[in-house]
Amino acid sequence: MKIIIVGATGTMGKHLANAFEKDHEIIRVGSRSGDIQADITSSESVENLFKQAGLFDALICTAGPSYVGPWKGMTANEFRKGVEGKFMGQVNLVLIGQHYINPKGSFTLITGALTHEPVLNFSSASAANGAVEAFVRAAAIELENGVRINAVSPTVIEDSPQYFPFFPGDIPVTMKQLEFGFRKSVFGGNTGQIIKPY
Amino acid sequence: MKIIIVGATGTMGKHLANAFEKDHEIIRVGSRSGDIQADITSSESVENLFKQAGLFDALICTAGPSYVGPWKGMTANEFRKGVEGKFMGQVNLVLIGQHYINPKGSFTLITGALTHEPVLNFSSASAANGAVEAFVRAAAIELENGVRINAVSPTVIEDSPQYFPFFPGDIPVTMKQLEFGFRKSVFGGNTGQIIKPY
Repeated sequence: MKIIIVGATGTMGKHLANAFEKDHEIIRVGSRSGDIQADITSSESVENLFKQAGLFDALICTAGPSYVGPWKGMTANEFRKGVEGKFMGQVNLVLIGQHYINPKGSFTLITGALTHEPVLNFSSASAANGAVEAFVRAAAIELENGVRINAVSPTVIEDSPQYFPFFPGDIPVTMKQLEFGFRKSVFGGNTGQIIKPY
Repeated sequence: MKIIIVGATGTMGKHLANAFEKDHEIIRVGSRSGDIQADITSSESVENLFKQAGLFDALICTAGPSYVGPWKGMTANEFRKGVEGKFMGQVNLVLIGQHYINPKGSFTLITGALTHEPVLNFSSASAANGAVEAFVRAAAIELENGVRINAVSPTVIEDSPQYFPFFPGDIPVTMKQLEFGFRKSVFGGNTGQIIKPY
């Protein structure tokens, strides 16, 4: 299977690329490194990514920039980081990628528990997640040729301890659990699902 | 109670303004008519709205433009209509309005069943709704001075029969049910809730 991993140079993407490369052809996409560089907030850059990658079977996205900071005084422009990054960046990958994906292929996006369990300072990510999840359900009934779409929703992840203080009481998702979540989407038959790997 | 209704010249807003004006001071806001005109997609226009309206007790938003049209060939720019309108427009109202709202005041935004029950052609609205709902939950734990925030989530509404063909099998929400949903938020004590008035 030819799998494009967007965010392949980040904590999650690196783990998934290493886990899947034994059995699959992996194309690593990063913003500044990887096999292909792309800025997912730009439609032109995303179009270019798919032109370089060619036809593929699965796209995994673990890239989801959003704004983290105090609510008080937060401007719409700061809040917008999650809108353009984690939300519209992933929408770009699907709207454009659908023209390059093989029949019965799959898109697996990244969301997170913040959709339903907000924490202070992360409203931008919460909103982006909510948008991604509703988009996944809507896209699932629109995509043709058996193409599937799901999102994986971890809590804070094991290998990002710098975020633990923001998520008091959240049991971190292990990298293995996270990997299982993506396996369920990429190698399973589900569509329109929000997969909680815990 | 001084209540600002954004979208007051639309189907929902007109009903709510008429229902609440007997007992409350209503400020009708529309994009092209009403007591005050505002473009909710513009931070400047929203700031100006609140400067004109002055301190208030409740804000109701029933304005939520989004893109409706075939998925196939839909561009990110078309999809963005719901992002800038129903999603970021309502975020603007809250991020800016929090500086003008009285203690124990409330924001009540509009979302809809499309968050969890997508229909064809409405992925832009689905995603905007999902974003609004997660934003409401996140904002509820950030807002201070007892300020509350909720969203009302109808299905297709009784007085918009032009939308019925897009929502096969959806039992329309009556205008009275819709009104009860907003009453629950504005005059109740809940916060961070998605109110389904059916």
